[in-house]
Amino acid sequence: MPARLNEFSAAEAARRIESGELTAEALAAACLERIAERDDAVRAWAFIHAKQALAEARDLDQMPRRSRLHGVPFGVKDIIDTESLPTEYGSPIYRGHQPRADAACVALLRRAGCLLLGKTVTTEFANNHPSPTRNPHDPRHTPGGSSSGSAAAVADCMVPLALGTQTGGSVIRPAAYCGAFAVKPSFGSINRQGTKFVAESLDTIGIFSRTPEDLALALEVLSSRPAPDFAAFAGKPRIGLCRTPRWQDADAATQANLEEAATRLSKAGAAVGDFELPAGSEALFERHKIIMGFESARALAWEYANFPEQISTTLKPRLDEAWQVTRAEYDAVRETARQCRRALADRMREVDFLLTPSAPSEAPRSLASTGDPVFNRAWTLFGLPCVTVPHGKGAHGLPLGVQLVGPFDGDAALLGWAHWADAALGAGG
Amino acid sequence: MPARLNEFSAAEAARRIESGELTAEALAAACLERIAERDDAVRAWAFIHAKQALAEARDLDQMPRRSRLHGVPFGVKDIIDTESLPTEYGSPIYRGHQPRADAACVALLRRAGCLLLGKTVTTEFANNHPSPTRNPHDPRHTPGGSSSGSAAAVADCMVPLALGTQTGGSVIRPAAYCGAFAVKPSFGSINRQGTKFVAESLDTIGIFSRTPEDLALALEVLSSRPAPDFAAFAGKPRIGLCRTPRWQDADAATQANLEEAATRLSKAGAAVGDFELPAGSEALFERHKIIMGFESARALAWEYANFPEQISTTLKPRLDEAWQVTRAEYDAVRETARQCRRALADRMREVDFLLTPSAPSEAPRSLASTGDPVFNRAWTLFGLPCVTVPHGKGAHGLPLGVQLVGPFDGDAALLGWAHWADAALGAGG
Repeated sequence: MPARLNEFSAAEAARRIESGELTAEALAAACLERIAERDDAVRAWAFIHAKQALAEARDLDQMPRRSRLHGVPFGVKDIIDTESLPTEYGSPIYRGHQPRADAACVALLRRAGCLLLGKTVTTEFANNHPSPTRNPHDPRHTPGGSSSGSAAAVADCMVPLALGTQTGGSVIRPAAYCGAFAVKPSFGSINRQGTKFVAESLDTIGIFSRTPEDLALALEVLSSRPAPDFAAFAGKPRIGLCRTPRWQDADAATQANLEEAATRLSKAGAAVGDFELPAGSEALFERHKIIMGFESARALAWEYANFPEQISTTLKPRLDEAWQVTRAEYDAVRETARQCRRALADRMREVDFLLTPSAPSEAPRSLASTGDPVFNRAWTLFGLPCVTVPHGKGAHGLPLGVQLVGPFDGDAALLGWAHWADAALGAGG
Repeated sequence: MPARLNEFSAAEAARRIESGELTAEALAAACLERIAERDDAVRAWAFIHAKQALAEARDLDQMPRRSRLHGVPFGVKDIIDTESLPTEYGSPIYRGHQPRADAACVALLRRAGCLLLGKTVTTEFANNHPSPTRNPHDPRHTPGGSSSGSAAAVADCMVPLALGTQTGGSVIRPAAYCGAFAVKPSFGSINRQGTKFVAESLDTIGIFSRTPEDLALALEVLSSRPAPDFAAFAGKPRIGLCRTPRWQDADAATQANLEEAATRLSKAGAAVGDFELPAGSEALFERHKIIMGFESARALAWEYANFPEQISTTLKPRLDEAWQVTRAEYDAVRETARQCRRALADRMREVDFLLTPSAPSEAPRSLASTGDPVFNRAWTLFGLPCVTVPHGKGAHGLPLGVQLVGPFDGDAALLGWAHWADAALGAGG
């Protein structure tokens, strides 16, 4: 049992709220206290209205239970609209911007009795210009991005659940860097109304938490797919060990950690075999950028035309370059991606999930970059569900993660296997 | 040559502006005059700021030419955000709502030197509760929906170009009812940032105009795909005559009109053959509703939770019902659609385009319904490009349209064939 209320998992907190051992108000107050204590160092939050959150928590305490997450506070990446808190998309262009409505994902969590605690820091337009957020394990290291605040806040026990978005590697990578669990569901799992687009054919809303169970319960609320029965995932999964064509980009600690994880899962009963991506996939690890650039140039057409001087020196040249990409180049990458996606779907029938790095290393010791999404981009482009499970340490002692990738729309089963893998990886620890 | 400036096509007006025979200001003034004359009867416009539009027109007259549509005014369906005009999504919930930014599609047209003339009426949340707009050919008849205002405004020569959106049949059907040309491009052709979602896996931005050339030039700006060279589409297309599994839903005039169009195109040199949709497609003409319902319930989760009494008596029960649809039902329809889409893509290699009705009849004599999207839903679900070409008259003398459907991402060629078909259909007239 955790020493402090803010350390409870979402599911455990909700169980105690249901049984009357805990109130939503006390839980929210504990999270707010943790934030007050730590956020000067971590800088995970963009906007919090503490009084309002506590008042809503009291309302939830009076209300019939709405779901298995009733009373649980959550953070929302500031690329997602909220009616009651400003939404600045990490950009000075939107200073003080107050949306009229909650995004669908926020409305769905509130409908389930969850408590909007505040907005978490996003990098500028969920792109790669660094935010002020620090890695809670060591403030000299990046928390990753673009969902910097959500990853750091959850890992630092400021909130048990948070929402982020991934276009390249903006959910899985920061979660791995900060030592949190996270899921980037299959493309199309969570409604995106009210989320500012980076690249609409890629953008996917994801969830951060500190247990696989919390991911499963939150994804049930957000996708309307029933959460897995973890007891059903106790067997002997078939695992494809996928080093990817970019294995050489992973540092020694990451390579060793993944091999060790594979050995451990094999000892726990899994059938582990090497898994190669379909021919043509190699190129997509880079060409993802063509799609992301082409689409984000258009999604930001208004900002680029009207406020070019308020776009960062990281993003502005990327947009300049993206406007040079032709529709034919863009369409060609999309067509290659479609072909690879189909070939991969066939091949993935032979496994329950793939095991692959969550990131090429622990969080780099730098605040000047949010790290490299090379181990995330292709999966986002394929639209496949990805879960990162914290496992191991890097050279500086920061967390590493292993990534599980499942078949399209097999999100619930993937979370079932993530729960199994987490237990199996921990057991030998 | 048209009697009045407001009757010019977009391309013709832009050519005259370039040559100095016409100014953007005079063109905008002529459109505004037409609106002042006619909009009490037609009710196509939600918001216009005439002074601002004329000032912007004068600015455009001073500026170097930005595209082949420089100086051309356009209308924007009020489901699409605009920075300088309110955006109410056809709902009292959003009364007075003023977005912070222009949607990407608006920004792209302005970047090309087009003039935002005003917002056109949308039905409530681009769904099927009728708007106050009337059919310009006869005010007792519906203009169709949900892009009611865009279709009526373009057909009535109030503006040469307008944007709409289609989730079921909200672009092609109202265009056909009003006697306008329109294109619903391939899914993914036009960036949707700043467009309020109905169902994000279906919603597609479309264009209304009075000539195929205007559609082609506007789609070039909006999709970055080069417009077709019409001279290259002078040959003998292979046409699949697709009566669809819902042929019995088309009235006698519509059936006769499509057969007559096929005969006429055949006489003009086309190879016309019957075309059957892949097995399993029949069900999708109805099951499209499962996808639209499931997604729109979530896209409107905030409105449904907070303002249920401000949702129309048409939409509210649809949303109630949609919340009963399970994720498994929804996923099953999506999977069927994917399979049919693949089978259809293979089969469509044998033709240049399909010929099919744009709507089951002329515009119904009623303002209580926006008509039936039965001949549009499946194509939207398949993501294929569709163009409606005005041709023929219904029983009450209102316009009919024939619909051309092309292969995925073959939008430019489809517009090339639409230009050819329009000429071929008119030539024998």
